[in-house]
Amino acid sequence: MNKKFLVTGCAGFIGSHAVDRLLAQGHVVIGIDNFSTGMREFLVDAQDNKNFRLIEADLLDAQLLKKEFFGVDCVFHFAANADVRHGLNQPDRDLYQNTMVTFHVLEAMRHCKVRNIIFSSTGSVYGECKVIPTPEDGPFPIQTSLYGASKLACEGLIAAYCEGYGFQSHIFRFVSILGERYTHGHVYDFYRKLKEDPKVLNVLGNGRQTKSYLYVHDCLDAIFMAMEKSEEKVNIFNLGYDGCCEVRDSVGWICHKLGLNPQVIYTDEVRGWVGDNPIIYLDTRKICQLGWQPQYTIQEAIGLTVAYLQNHEWVYERRA
Amino acid sequence: MNKKFLVTGCAGFIGSHAVDRLLAQGHVVIGIDNFSTGMREFLVDAQDNKNFRLIEADLLDAQLLKKEFFGVDCVFHFAANADVRHGLNQPDRDLYQNTMVTFHVLEAMRHCKVRNIIFSSTGSVYGECKVIPTPEDGPFPIQTSLYGASKLACEGLIAAYCEGYGFQSHIFRFVSILGERYTHGHVYDFYRKLKEDPKVLNVLGNGRQTKSYLYVHDCLDAIFMAMEKSEEKVNIFNLGYDGCCEVRDSVGWICHKLGLNPQVIYTDEVRGWVGDNPIIYLDTRKICQLGWQPQYTIQEAIGLTVAYLQNHEWVYERRA
Repeated sequence: MNKKFLVTGCAGFIGSHAVDRLLAQGHVVIGIDNFSTGMREFLVDAQDNKNFRLIEADLLDAQLLKKEFFGVDCVFHFAANADVRHGLNQPDRDLYQNTMVTFHVLEAMRHCKVRNIIFSSTGSVYGECKVIPTPEDGPFPIQTSLYGASKLACEGLIAAYCEGYGFQSHIFRFVSILGERYTHGHVYDFYRKLKEDPKVLNVLGNGRQTKSYLYVHDCLDAIFMAMEKSEEKVNIFNLGYDGCCEVRDSVGWICHKLGLNPQVIYTDEVRGWVGDNPIIYLDTRKICQLGWQPQYTIQEAIGLTVAYLQNHEWVYERRA
Repeated sequence: MNKKFLVTGCAGFIGSHAVDRLLAQGHVVIGIDNFSTGMREFLVDAQDNKNFRLIEADLLDAQLLKKEFFGVDCVFHFAANADVRHGLNQPDRDLYQNTMVTFHVLEAMRHCKVRNIIFSSTGSVYGECKVIPTPEDGPFPIQTSLYGASKLACEGLIAAYCEGYGFQSHIFRFVSILGERYTHGHVYDFYRKLKEDPKVLNVLGNGRQTKSYLYVHDCLDAIFMAMEKSEEKVNIFNLGYDGCCEVRDSVGWICHKLGLNPQVIYTDEVRGWVGDNPIIYLDTRKICQLGWQPQYTIQEAIGLTVAYLQNHEWVYERRA
């Protein structure tokens, strides 16, 4: 049965893929984006579909929101500041772009009697967890970044709305996602640096940071499967690859893919920046028990990402 | 060595006791309160002390804050909306009064290079935890109230400031606190109801809710001990009594203390209200390992609270 979805951050990396999938399934989709980091090019296919309507607006504009949510069956709330690294330079950014925006979305939903929300959280909410791989019900987390803190606050608000107002939520704690339309993160940065200087690559940290990455279509497979099969009031799933690589591995794969052999310069730090988690590896048994498994390895996801950037170098101009 | 403290919510129940203790130790204290729920009468002793200065202001006024924090050694951040029950009637209240206010306090501290914060959190951040008694590092919590969600968000912000800006924090997750200057909660409500009608007492829920309560001076003993003895970057402690009572027990003790024998009417609900946690019992081994233990039982704390209300019935007029 076709439904009406609203996707916030519809022009973003993951949001735009969600829009394409929902439209392909025959659903009606309202997309909201303020194009602060989203890209119009990611909505080219959607814009050709009569079931898609774009609203160019800022989600902090609470008044606007209140009318747009009427008649919506489910909200994909993917709009966010997704940059974990630079939070300390502007400490109100995550608070407003993530926590406050999520509150406004929840209030618009309540006002319009929309009760289903799909939310993109992050493995950063675990801070530097001692249990690795980290399960969804791991130890009470201690935050190490403003980004993680803001997403944890979002999760708390969403769960409280589920308890208090009868909402249902699906909350996904992502590792870093890679793939087509990827426009920030280490592969993006390394590719840019190597374009500027193919002979030298400066890396933040000692390169021993251990990370898990997931390919974007595997990520969306998991989200859609969980929506269908998991029906608790609050459904929380880690989404990641069941394995990790070191930053050094990733550097090697990227350089190999590009046919480059630069001098790679590391620092002595175990963290790439304040709040960087030296080990990200999520326990994904819960989502796998629903029948999901990733189709692409970390190395394949990195390769596909590099290929995308090679064929879409304009993304760097847009973000300059 | 005498220091300069700033106490937010200085005219509140716990804040005013903290002010009195700090002044008794010879420290200089700046108190901030907007008197939305705080009471001037609680500051009568403080106002006689030359080391005390009161600032009547709202902590959401970020500009004001920025100058008042200069030269402060440590902030007791106790200002909050402390009402867990009515959050659903006004869902932005906890977000602004707790989360946003805490952000403003942290920013004022950062601006003025103040790096020590004492924070009153709550056992409500655990939601309905399956591990009872609940330890500080219990399972990743699922929020069941906007109040708990807002305090969890505060904890996350504080921890991220510790990691990012070199702050040190002492975060205390309280059970309900009882004692002198107590002006909201079940003893307060039951006393008022019994004054109005000594023959009938209507109770929210089935009376089997199992709660732990702590006497306010035991609470402050713990806070001051933890400040002195625990020196991690982020120091989190449950504060509660190592035991519980049922609401029915509490009703009995209150009635006995008042010499009343009303008809007590319960509902069928296991929760007194949406978001009420049927069992609150915190594991306090961590704070006890520092050498603290409560001096008053739950029954004694309830008795002292009833006695206080009997001798200070004006608190009801102030809050009418």
